Amino acid sequence: MSEQRYEKLLAALADNSEKVERALEGFCSETDEDFGIVMDAERYSLLGGGKRIRPFLVNEFCRALGGDIEASMPLACALEMIHTYSLIHDDLPCMDDDDMRRGKPSNHKRFGYANALLAGDALLTRAFEVAASAEKLKPDARVEAVSLLARAAGDRGMIGGQVIDLDSENKSISLEKLLKLHSLKTGALIVCAAKLGCLAAGFGTDSAESRAAEKYAAGIGLAFQAVDDMLDVISSAETLGKNIGSDKDKGKTTFLTFFDIEQTAAYAGRVTESAKTALADIKDSALLGELADYLLQRRS
Amino acid sequence: MSEQRYEKLLAALADNSEKVERALEGFCSETDEDFGIVMDAERYSLLGGGKRIRPFLVNEFCRALGGDIEASMPLACALEMIHTYSLIHDDLPCMDDDDMRRGKPSNHKRFGYANALLAGDALLTRAFEVAASAEKLKPDARVEAVSLLARAAGDRGMIGGQVIDLDSENKSISLEKLLKLHSLKTGALIVCAAKLGCLAAGFGTDSAESRAAEKYAAGIGLAFQAVDDMLDVISSAETLGKNIGSDKDKGKTTFLTFFDIEQTAAYAGRVTESAKTALADIKDSALLGELADYLLQRRS
Repeated sequence: MSEQRYEKLLAALADNSEKVERALEGFCSETDEDFGIVMDAERYSLLGGGKRIRPFLVNEFCRALGGDIEASMPLACALEMIHTYSLIHDDLPCMDDDDMRRGKPSNHKRFGYANALLAGDALLTRAFEVAASAEKLKPDARVEAVSLLARAAGDRGMIGGQVIDLDSENKSISLEKLLKLHSLKTGALIVCAAKLGCLAAGFGTDSAESRAAEKYAAGIGLAFQAVDDMLDVISSAETLGKNIGSDKDKGKTTFLTFFDIEQTAAYAGRVTESAKTALADIKDSALLGELADYLLQRRS
Repeated sequence: MSEQRYEKLLAALADNSEKVERALEGFCSETDEDFGIVMDAERYSLLGGGKRIRPFLVNEFCRALGGDIEASMPLACALEMIHTYSLIHDDLPCMDDDDMRRGKPSNHKRFGYANALLAGDALLTRAFEVAASAEKLKPDARVEAVSLLARAAGDRGMIGGQVIDLDSENKSISLEKLLKLHSLKTGALIVCAAKLGCLAAGFGTDSAESRAAEKYAAGIGLAFQAVDDMLDVISSAETLGKNIGSDKDKGKTTFLTFFDIEQTAAYAGRVTESAKTALADIKDSALLGELADYLLQRRS
């Protein structure tokens, strides 16, 4: 598929990335002569990159529902801080033990084990401070945002998924458990992003809009993971920015344990379609529809 | 000094401990067949013990200022979760590498490195969910509580102190930096406890009461640390529940680097007195005054 097909989306993603980067920089501009190294470690992983898909979801759901992205931006930044913390901790030697992340040394390779651990802790903590300080939102919406973030990131969310993931190395798990793993480890935060965007536009978690956003996000989350599993097999290390074949090396169960490449692609296509169907309840959802297609065809 | 001198305080501490334990159990009763181990790891460190000094400060400031401890209890529990997470992460091999905590194996010795790391992450995350759900507080007070907790626990608070602490092993630091270390690593959370109690009683961070609480807590925090440093030298392993002399073994700068035992005791006495002076602005502060004296004379 051509890049032209996604011209508007790519422009919107680039614009969002730039705005998110600036907002994150604003939240991380401080330093201290005695413990500046942990702030440097935070900035190292938080700034300078990525497609910022999760913050885009927050801001784009807000915009699509008639909200102001100035209202959603602190929530987008808070979520990105949590995502970044999870990557730093996932890469640690006691976890996935990854030396590289996004084509550069992982945080602990650059700053040492203790500082990387603390930088992760600090970003997780900061996320809640930032969400609580979302000044364009009323206090009850801020409270709801903190609560959504904590539940998505906590032991019954992302952390639970990580525990299943670690527990599943070098043993086979059922497809059902693999789906649970993904819906928690990556899905919970993606769903949270979509719901935070709704919340910032005035649509609480009980609204039809928020429920539609949840369905959409759960769908693209699963598709994202299925595509990830395929890319781990078929992509090159250069394109991916990390070692390929790492899933198999670690004896991890993936979609490829149950399906071949073609079946996995078909599965990703189906959940993407159902995600797009859920967008019927979202007013100005063209870009979100494009995003679902774009993530399906990505090659890195 | 006799236990009789502290009869009322000890009864209040015991009563508080029991109530906090029950409330914490209520927040941690869930399990899951696939990731229950991380919840077990959380409960292992969170439940079953300790004097619960920090939750007592939250609840007692609330009560002393005419508030209802049903309002402050979720904040007390949130703070204790953050305190517990910090102990779990501090004990990890990449940090202080301690095998024992409160007379039993530290979390990673019992549950493994990865699960201990994740249990700490989960408790930190859960703390914000619990604070956000403090149903007896209005949304703006909950937002303020989340913000106070995040700032106290974050990189400009407790984590900054931990970075200084790690950076200070096997080298000498100035007394000024030692004071900064303590005011951040342990002081920030103790001050936060006192301010949360005020907040739950309707006294925001700008109130004279909250400022008095801050002075009091900063004072007992420093005294607590000075006494800790003395006990590391003069106490026995059995009384303390951990190895003694560990500070010196690790080449850590302590109050004993600058003062002898007598001078350190005198210093602890002075900051305790100034803490008690600050209580003049707090209505029913008898127990808080006793607590300051009690912490000063503790032997474990």
